[in-house]
Amino acid sequence: MSFVYKAEPVRGEEWRTLFKERAPDLPFHVWPETGPAEDVRYLAVWQPPARLMERFPNLELLFSVGAGVDQLDWTGIPAHVPVVRMTEPGIAQGMAEYVTLAVLALHRDWPNYLQQQRAGIWREWRNVPAAQRRIGVLGLGMLGKHVLQQLRPFGFPLAGWSRSGGAIEGVEVFAGESQLPEFLARTDILICLLPLTDQTRGLLNSRLFGQLPNGAALINVGRGAHLINDDLLAALDAGQLRGAVLDVCDPEPLSADHPFWKDPRIIITPHVASMTRPETAVERVLEVITQHRAGVPLKGAIDRNKGY
Amino acid sequence: MSFVYKAEPVRGEEWRTLFKERAPDLPFHVWPETGPAEDVRYLAVWQPPARLMERFPNLELLFSVGAGVDQLDWTGIPAHVPVVRMTEPGIAQGMAEYVTLAVLALHRDWPNYLQQQRAGIWREWRNVPAAQRRIGVLGLGMLGKHVLQQLRPFGFPLAGWSRSGGAIEGVEVFAGESQLPEFLARTDILICLLPLTDQTRGLLNSRLFGQLPNGAALINVGRGAHLINDDLLAALDAGQLRGAVLDVCDPEPLSADHPFWKDPRIIITPHVASMTRPETAVERVLEVITQHRAGVPLKGAIDRNKGY
Repeated sequence: MSFVYKAEPVRGEEWRTLFKERAPDLPFHVWPETGPAEDVRYLAVWQPPARLMERFPNLELLFSVGAGVDQLDWTGIPAHVPVVRMTEPGIAQGMAEYVTLAVLALHRDWPNYLQQQRAGIWREWRNVPAAQRRIGVLGLGMLGKHVLQQLRPFGFPLAGWSRSGGAIEGVEVFAGESQLPEFLARTDILICLLPLTDQTRGLLNSRLFGQLPNGAALINVGRGAHLINDDLLAALDAGQLRGAVLDVCDPEPLSADHPFWKDPRIIITPHVASMTRPETAVERVLEVITQHRAGVPLKGAIDRNKGY
Repeated sequence: MSFVYKAEPVRGEEWRTLFKERAPDLPFHVWPETGPAEDVRYLAVWQPPARLMERFPNLELLFSVGAGVDQLDWTGIPAHVPVVRMTEPGIAQGMAEYVTLAVLALHRDWPNYLQQQRAGIWREWRNVPAAQRRIGVLGLGMLGKHVLQQLRPFGFPLAGWSRSGGAIEGVEVFAGESQLPEFLARTDILICLLPLTDQTRGLLNSRLFGQLPNGAALINVGRGAHLINDDLLAALDAGQLRGAVLDVCDPEPLSADHPFWKDPRIIITPHVASMTRPETAVERVLEVITQHRAGVPLKGAIDRNKGY
């Protein structure tokens, strides 16, 4: 029985050290090293290897090292192997930090001030009180809820939207397609934290931007493919949007000549909003292995029909 | 009996509207209009006029429209006229927002990412967990305390320093000259929220930077004259500091050819961290006038010996 890690190798070495401390009896390998293939029961990946089950015929559990699983090609993954996404607390904390930073940067006009700085211009713009800046989060999973909780002390009017809705203290919750227009109409800063599915791909498009108040702003921390890139530029040019913070792009890395890079209305970071932390990730992985051996439900297991 | 407002004229008109609603019996004027000079009992200023008491012989109260009073020339202000600084809640809320934004921007390497964006570079840097990023606030007045409270939910180790110290929940407090080195040695992101006095002028200098851990960062939201500009550039060049966010500069506006503008390690905003909001400011001013008439202590009155 063994565990194989197949993702970023530097982190793999950190996982190795942590496994040695916390699960010394479970052999651990960093890809491409795997030990005897028939021993591999647990595999943690960003992307699984080709011909997964031929290679590891006794695989019992597949872990995604990211919070999402949209990168996975499901065709090679048999139904009897549960796929578990990363839900460790470090991801939620990092995401809440990043989104708070992005919200405050847009709230306090930083794209504007950064552009003025490059031109050597000292010009103040009137601050808008937080009570007059309405924040809306698309996607109310673990990350969306954590982000809303972190934003609460600032006094922004908060709302959230998801397919199924639900109650969150201090947050106006909207549910389903029918309530999406009402949610958008009251949102000055829109945050995309949706999973990427066939239903959400390309959702951030001209039609959606047109439903936001004039001069709204966008934060995309979901996936690059949620956004139609050309529609963002058109909405900025038309003044329908006044700024955007993008941590995810399509493609990644963004091509060197992409117009997003030089656009002063857009702030880009290279998919760093939230990173799986080895300490908490290994703890969570070992917890799921224990759940699996005990035959109880697995924390973070993906529902293949929903895709998240 | 009348009130004269002598500062930014657009805000003056907003004050006029608010006074009309809330104190309709008190004549209100926006400078240079003053009405009969002998009627003027209350004056709100950024800078008082020359020959203050000759001009307004019956002046009873002088309000500063800013949170600080270091801009005032005290020589023309007689001891029997109390000087009251602005302590309205809008200032504290704006400051807490701004400092949180600046802390998160430095914590999450935004000076670095913004520079990479300009060069079209997609390169990630490992996030540092909040628990490993130690924040320190210089100055524990109303603003310093509010900032620390806003930062608490993020999980940063928090400390504060002031001349007299005091207890703040969740914050390690250091007091006086003797504990300053210990405070600096444990501070990765230093925030200056001190009043500007003869004791604090030029405090942010090479000697102080040298007491911070290597690679620390600076946020100055006090006054520009707290900072020795050349010492900041030297500390950045030496790697002693890795970045800075400056909302205040000396002089203001910063001259168009100042090296701060083009330095990618420095983020500059034009003294906008916190703005007095007409609604809450007028409310506070009227409250102080009521206190003055009742002969009770005035909220925000300056102790001239301390200078704040």
